[in-house]
Amino acid sequence: MCPGRAGHNAEGMRTQVAIIGAGPAGLLLSHLLAQGGVESVVLETRSEEYVAARIRAGILEHSSVELLEAAGLGARIRAEGDEHRGIYLQWPGERHHLDFVDLTGRSVWVYGQTEVQKDLIAARRAGGQEIHYEVSDVALHDVEERPYVTFTDVSGAPQRIDAVVIAGCDGSFGPSRSAVPAAQVFERVYPYSWFGILADVAPSTDELIYAWHPDGFALHSMRSESVSRLYLQVPNGTDPQSWSDDRIWGELSKRLGHGQNGWKLNPGPITDKSVLPMRSYVQTPMRHGELYLAGDAAHIVPPTGAKGLNLAIADVALLSRALISKIKDKDSSYADAYSDHAQRRVWRCTHFSWWMTTMLHTSGDPFDAELQLSQLRWVAGSRAGATGLAENYAGLPIGY
Amino acid sequence: MCPGRAGHNAEGMRTQVAIIGAGPAGLLLSHLLAQGGVESVVLETRSEEYVAARIRAGILEHSSVELLEAAGLGARIRAEGDEHRGIYLQWPGERHHLDFVDLTGRSVWVYGQTEVQKDLIAARRAGGQEIHYEVSDVALHDVEERPYVTFTDVSGAPQRIDAVVIAGCDGSFGPSRSAVPAAQVFERVYPYSWFGILADVAPSTDELIYAWHPDGFALHSMRSESVSRLYLQVPNGTDPQSWSDDRIWGELSKRLGHGQNGWKLNPGPITDKSVLPMRSYVQTPMRHGELYLAGDAAHIVPPTGAKGLNLAIADVALLSRALISKIKDKDSSYADAYSDHAQRRVWRCTHFSWWMTTMLHTSGDPFDAELQLSQLRWVAGSRAGATGLAENYAGLPIGY
Repeated sequence: MCPGRAGHNAEGMRTQVAIIGAGPAGLLLSHLLAQGGVESVVLETRSEEYVAARIRAGILEHSSVELLEAAGLGARIRAEGDEHRGIYLQWPGERHHLDFVDLTGRSVWVYGQTEVQKDLIAARRAGGQEIHYEVSDVALHDVEERPYVTFTDVSGAPQRIDAVVIAGCDGSFGPSRSAVPAAQVFERVYPYSWFGILADVAPSTDELIYAWHPDGFALHSMRSESVSRLYLQVPNGTDPQSWSDDRIWGELSKRLGHGQNGWKLNPGPITDKSVLPMRSYVQTPMRHGELYLAGDAAHIVPPTGAKGLNLAIADVALLSRALISKIKDKDSSYADAYSDHAQRRVWRCTHFSWWMTTMLHTSGDPFDAELQLSQLRWVAGSRAGATGLAENYAGLPIGY
Repeated sequence: MCPGRAGHNAEGMRTQVAIIGAGPAGLLLSHLLAQGGVESVVLETRSEEYVAARIRAGILEHSSVELLEAAGLGARIRAEGDEHRGIYLQWPGERHHLDFVDLTGRSVWVYGQTEVQKDLIAARRAGGQEIHYEVSDVALHDVEERPYVTFTDVSGAPQRIDAVVIAGCDGSFGPSRSAVPAAQVFERVYPYSWFGILADVAPSTDELIYAWHPDGFALHSMRSESVSRLYLQVPNGTDPQSWSDDRIWGELSKRLGHGQNGWKLNPGPITDKSVLPMRSYVQTPMRHGELYLAGDAAHIVPPTGAKGLNLAIADVALLSRALISKIKDKDSSYADAYSDHAQRRVWRCTHFSWWMTTMLHTSGDPFDAELQLSQLRWVAGSRAGATGLAENYAGLPIGY
C-alpha cells in the first residue's frame, strides 16, 4: 500500500488507538481512553482554530451532560450553559410548551458544540494528548488485523502510525467510512434545507420554538443570552446570499408568529448565513476488523431533533468502554458487540430525527399538512404523545 | 330538477330527517334520533339481506361500546362479543403484547360490523322505523334550504321525501358526498392492498396479532371462537382467486411466525377471499346547507387501525345530538359546529390509521424498513410509545 512513499517503511509512531478526526467524537474518545489508561494519537486535516470555531449543534441531551460531567468536562456547561426544561411546539395560532422535566425527569442544555470542542481541546492539552492538526493524505491500511495509518504531517513529511485499533471519527467526508468494505448504506435525502442565521440579539424566547407553518418550518434557537440562532425551511439549492436581512426577519416573523398573543421576535444584526442540506444516512456495520467508526463517520441525521452531536457522544461512550476492555483487559466482548449495540441507538435517533423532520417540514401536499397538524395537536395535547417526544428529545440513557 | 319525473310534484312523504344509507351510520342515526324524539326515513339501494351480511370491520372501540350500550344496543355485544385487553405487535423473532387496559384503562371488543348491523336492524324494526330498501335513482335536491330527496322505490314507483335536513350516510359511492359543492378533498392511495380471508377454524391467538415482516404485513384477527379472519399485504391489483389455499396459509404462517417460540398457526377451510384496496380520504366540510355527511360518505381510512366503523359511530354521536338540538330545541349551534367538531376526530383517526399503516406495511425501501423496526421496538419498549398507540387504538372519548 502506498509503495511510492519511502517514509512509510521507516520506523513510525506506535500507539494503542489511532483516532482519525479531532472533532467532538475523536477528542472525547481520546479523553475517555486516557482516563481508562489507553493511549491514543489523534489526526486532523483541519487546523485547531478551524475545528474550534466551526458552528454546529447547540443542544446537549441529559445523558450527554451526565457523561461529560463524569469525564470532568462539566464545569463550563454548568457555569455557562443554559438548562432548558423543554421546548415550545407551535403552529399558526397555538404555542404549547412541552416540559421534558415534568414528563420524563430529564432536561436538555443549550451549550454549543463549539464550546464542547473548546473544553475538549483544553482538556486534551492539559492531558498531553498527541494531536496532529493539518495533516493530509490520510490513508488506512490493513484494518483487518495489524492496522496502521499513513499521512503527511503539517511540515510535509510522510508519517506512519501503527496501532492496535483505528477509530474513525472523521465524519462523512473522511476516509474511514469507505475503509469498511461491503458496508450496507441507508440513505434519505429530504426535499428541503435549513437556512440558518446567527444574530447578535438576545433570544426572543426562553426555550427553543419549533414552528410548523404552511410556508415552511421555522426554529428559534439560541447560543447565549446575546446570540440568537434561527432557521427557516427553504428549497434545496437556496443561495444564502440571495436573501436580504429584511427578507429573513420578515419570513421568521411570519412563521414564528410575531404579534400573536403579544409575542414579538426581536431582529438584530445577522453575523452568519448558511444553508444546510438535510439527510439521513446510516452505514452498517460500524466495525470492520480493527477499524471502529463513531459519530458522523457512520451516520448523519437531519438537525431537527438535535441528535447529531449527542449520538456521537453516545457512540464514543460505548466505544471507549469497548476499547479499554479490549486493550487493557484483553476482553473483546464489548468490542465485538459495539456495532450492533450502537446501531440500536443510531436507529432510534435516526427514526426520531426523521419523525421530527417530517412532522414539521411542509411538503406541499395538503394531505401531509393535515396529518402534520393532527399529529402536532395530539403530541401537544396527549401526555403519551408529549412524553414520546420528550423522552426521545431529552435523550435515552447511554447504553440504550 | 328531474323535470321528467311527474311523481316528484305529487304530494310526497315528509319527515324530519331523510337518511340516505342503511349501514351502521344511517341506522344508528335513525335510532338515536328516534330516542331523542326526532323522526326519520331511511333509504338504501341494497337489500336488507345484503347489508346485514356484508363483511366489514370487526373491532369496536371502548367509546363505541359505551355509546351502543347507552343506546340499548349492548346486550349482544356483552353476550357474544369478545373483550380484548390489547393487541400483539410483532416482527421476526419478537412478539409483544400491548395491554390497553393497563396503559389507558380502556379495552376493545371483537364484534363484527355484521353483528352491529343485525342489532340495528332488529332495533329499528322494533321501533317501527321506516326504511326503504332496494331503492334506485336517489337524488338530493335544494340542500341549501328546503331539501328533498327523490328516488325510485322497490316497486319502480317514483318517490319524493321532503325533510328538514338530509343525512348522507351512504358511503363513498353514494350521491351525498358529491352534493357538497366546492368541498375540499384530501386523498392518499397506498401502494398495497389487503388480501383478506375468512376461515372456519378457531383463532390461533387470543388477541389480534399485527405482524411486520420483510415480505409484507400480516394480521391475525377473528370473528368468533370458530371463525378466523386473516390478512396479508399484497400488491395492488392482486386477484384473490389466483392464490391457492396452500399458498395463503404458507404465506400467513411465514409472516405470522408459525413455529417461533412454539406458536402455531392452525389452518382451516377458507370460506371467503377478497382483496381490499387501501386509501385515506377526507372531504371537508361535512355539512352544506341542510345536508350533513357522516361516516364513509365523508372519510375513508385504511383498515389497519380498525377505525372506519368507530369513526362513523363517533360522527353519528355528534350528528344525532346536533340534529335533535336543531329540530327539537330550535338550537342550531351544535349543527353549525358539527363539521369542525367532527373533523378533529376525523383527522386524529386519519393520522393514526396512516401511522399504523405506514409503520407496518413494507414499501420495498430498506431505509423505511429500518425506520419501521426502530419505531416498532420503541412502541413496544417505551410506556409512552405503547400508550400512544393504545389511546388511539382503544379510542378517544366521544366528543374529542
